[in-house]
Amino acid sequence: MDSATAAAEISPAARLAAAEGLVAIGAQMHAAGWSRATSSNYSVRLSADPLRLLVTASGKHKDRLTTDDFVLIDESGGAVEPDALKSSAETMLHVVLARDAGAGAIVHTHSVWGTLLSDIHGPEGVVTLAGYEMLKALPGIKTHDTAVDIAIFPNTQDIDALAAELSDRLKAGDDAVRYGFLINKHGLYTWADQLDSARACVEALEFLFECEGRRLKL
Amino acid sequence: MDSATAAAEISPAARLAAAEGLVAIGAQMHAAGWSRATSSNYSVRLSADPLRLLVTASGKHKDRLTTDDFVLIDESGGAVEPDALKSSAETMLHVVLARDAGAGAIVHTHSVWGTLLSDIHGPEGVVTLAGYEMLKALPGIKTHDTAVDIAIFPNTQDIDALAAELSDRLKAGDDAVRYGFLINKHGLYTWADQLDSARACVEALEFLFECEGRRLKL
Amino acid sequence: MDSATAAAEISPAARLAAAEGLVAIGAQMHAAGWSRATSSNYSVRLSADPLRLLVTASGKHKDRLTTDDFVLIDESGGAVEPDALKSSAETMLHVVLARDAGAGAIVHTHSVWGTLLSDIHGPEGVVTLAGYEMLKALPGIKTHDTAVDIAIFPNTQDIDALAAELSDRLKAGDDAVRYGFLINKHGLYTWADQLDSARACVEALEFLFECEGRRLKL
Amino acid sequence: MDSATAAAEISPAARLAAAEGLVAIGAQMHAAGWSRATSSNYSVRLSADPLRLLVTASGKHKDRLTTDDFVLIDESGGAVEPDALKSSAETMLHVVLARDAGAGAIVHTHSVWGTLLSDIHGPEGVVTLAGYEMLKALPGIKTHDTAVDIAIFPNTQDIDALAAELSDRLKAGDDAVRYGFLINKHGLYTWADQLDSARACVEALEFLFECEGRRLKL
Repeated sequence: MDSATAAAEISPAARLAAAEGLVAIGAQMHAAGWSRATSSNYSVRLSADPLRLLVTASGKHKDRLTTDDFVLIDESGGAVEPDALKSSAETMLHVVLARDAGAGAIVHTHSVWGTLLSDIHGPEGVVTLAGYEMLKALPGIKTHDTAVDIAIFPNTQDIDALAAELSDRLKAGDDAVRYGFLINKHGLYTWADQLDSARACVEALEFLFECEGRRLKL
Repeated sequence: MDSATAAAEISPAARLAAAEGLVAIGAQMHAAGWSRATSSNYSVRLSADPLRLLVTASGKHKDRLTTDDFVLIDESGGAVEPDALKSSAETMLHVVLARDAGAGAIVHTHSVWGTLLSDIHGPEGVVTLAGYEMLKALPGIKTHDTAVDIAIFPNTQDIDALAAELSDRLKAGDDAVRYGFLINKHGLYTWADQLDSARACVEALEFLFECEGRRLKL
Repeated sequence: MDSATAAAEISPAARLAAAEGLVAIGAQMHAAGWSRATSSNYSVRLSADPLRLLVTASGKHKDRLTTDDFVLIDESGGAVEPDALKSSAETMLHVVLARDAGAGAIVHTHSVWGTLLSDIHGPEGVVTLAGYEMLKALPGIKTHDTAVDIAIFPNTQDIDALAAELSDRLKAGDDAVRYGFLINKHGLYTWADQLDSARACVEALEFLFECEGRRLKL
Repeated sequence: MDSATAAAEISPAARLAAAEGLVAIGAQMHAAGWSRATSSNYSVRLSADPLRLLVTASGKHKDRLTTDDFVLIDESGGAVEPDALKSSAETMLHVVLARDAGAGAIVHTHSVWGTLLSDIHGPEGVVTLAGYEMLKALPGIKTHDTAVDIAIFPNTQDIDALAAELSDRLKAGDDAVRYGFLINKHGLYTWADQLDSARACVEALEFLFECEGRRLKL
């Protein structure tokens, strides 16, 4: 099947609905201070087989996205359609999460507290969030009496290498990449089945990063 | 009287007005950062005898509630109407507050500062707010020259046990549950006769939690 | 001249314009986090002789004031019109500022940083703001190379006594009450000729309180 | 060519578009807390030769600018048109940036974190931002693995002298004034080809100032 055929298989209504959801996410994430300066990228999976993701085009201010500011990509991370906008340099991380973590929606943010925590806990490669009620916003967590590990990867411009490492850890069932991960002095990736649930994940994790960061100073 | 009869006694206009008030509270609490990630729940008492509370359905993002996102519950914490949405797991706390504290409106929030203070003062089981003008926003307080105790309960997934303990303390006239209480690393409950007054309570207590939290670092 | 006559002298258009300005200030101050929980009060002077001030009625949430939520008061601090809403308990401070400081508009806010600074510097009775460019937002200040003293009064419920002390200090030309003052663990009063300028004063002083408060922790 | 002729050369449509962009920037910068109390100024270059800049008039609240609140200025920093509003006292800094740094749009903000960092690092005359992904929001930066110096100038009311020093450093290719600079206890200047890109610069630098400021306390 060639790319043009696959693109045709995505219904315009489904694509528009996904784009509208992502436009709203952009406004919410920017208002929260987590997607400043054209940073961040978000995606929705429109098809699992063949893999089709609608991803934010790069370089857009996230508080005023339009439904035209997205790119349909395939499992190689490349644009399905001719003359597409450029997607984020980190597109392959979205592909890996959709493919190997079964993510239906992925939200990547850049927050001050996430940046600070990833720096402080970078040497350990993990930050642990334990005992908070807010953990129950993460998929499948039913009690506060638990501890969630969030992996911290070194930052790199070699996204293919990072994507490969992420894929390995996902396939190995590594608990530290079950709900999200940080990249050092960079930001958070989190995901869920649906965009609404992914939004709950990012709000919960950023809330907990702020709790942990402020607690360090007390 | 069976449940269907009781539900019928609540006027649609009163129920709609309560739902509209709670939709507005959701938007305000989310904007303040106190109801992220579908956390929090709010209720209005529509009838005291038999007890009828309109409570937020669980799992909704609080910045975009609609008037359909609520459940009418009775004194058992169960839904009065067939095919109702699922109400919060913490519904019995609302029932106890409406029944034993005479609350007409209840607001439960999850804030960073409330979470931190409940952790720091958790071992003492209480945080004391003293000498602040903002205390006068709480019902019946006429001078800043006073001290208000806010009880801190350990967090639990056994809400029935927590509800029973709360009921006992309310019936005993415990001053530390007069204006609100915290649950450890979880959040705040506060209440008043009317939703507008309960909003003043939550804004005042969250303001004071931030003051106390920041003061600890100075 | 009796009160009814004096009230009649205020043009409805001027009164409405003042109320609309104060409604906007309420929304701005609440959004900034400085007027939570129905706290704060604001006024505009509509006439100097006889003194007529339009003051916020007490107990209103400041993010949704309407043009009906104000009271016209005279130099005694009492309502000019029959059946008026209750004005703030602190109305006499507005009267003193309009009379003895020549204030055309007065904004009183409750912020976290103002509360903290008033507590830390309360024993000295003054907080000094020095060397900041933002000081030039205050009326008549032309260089950053200056120091502004902001008096801190002990909090009290005896507003008449506080008003008398404030009046004495204003009449004596005390520099520490030239641009505004704090009340301990309570909030800020600032004022200017016009409401727009008073808004600049409160934004500048609250900005500087945050700078000073955060600097203490570094 | 006299000034009236030059003004006529700027198309009304281009001028209106620039003014609309600057109105939006004002709302965004005020909402972020970086343009309080009528502080800050912004400009767009409408012509390079002869130099024509559309600059904010002084003394306006930045959250409610209108397209009439701007002044067209020439390379002397003076108004091109008769009866123009007064432009900022810092207009010559905009002229120098448009002329010697090739800036197409300039954004000057006053933030709490910028104020604090400029104070702490003032004696060194520079703050260094290193290793952050967010640095890639700055023009031409392709990797996080870099360090950006932001010069800190002493504050002064002698803007002509500061403009001359800035011009010298720009002409000398000083790396510390490549992306922006701070003025001590005053604020940030940053710029880019287009207003959208300048907005990304200010959001990125203010984000990084907050990261650096909070890191100092950990």
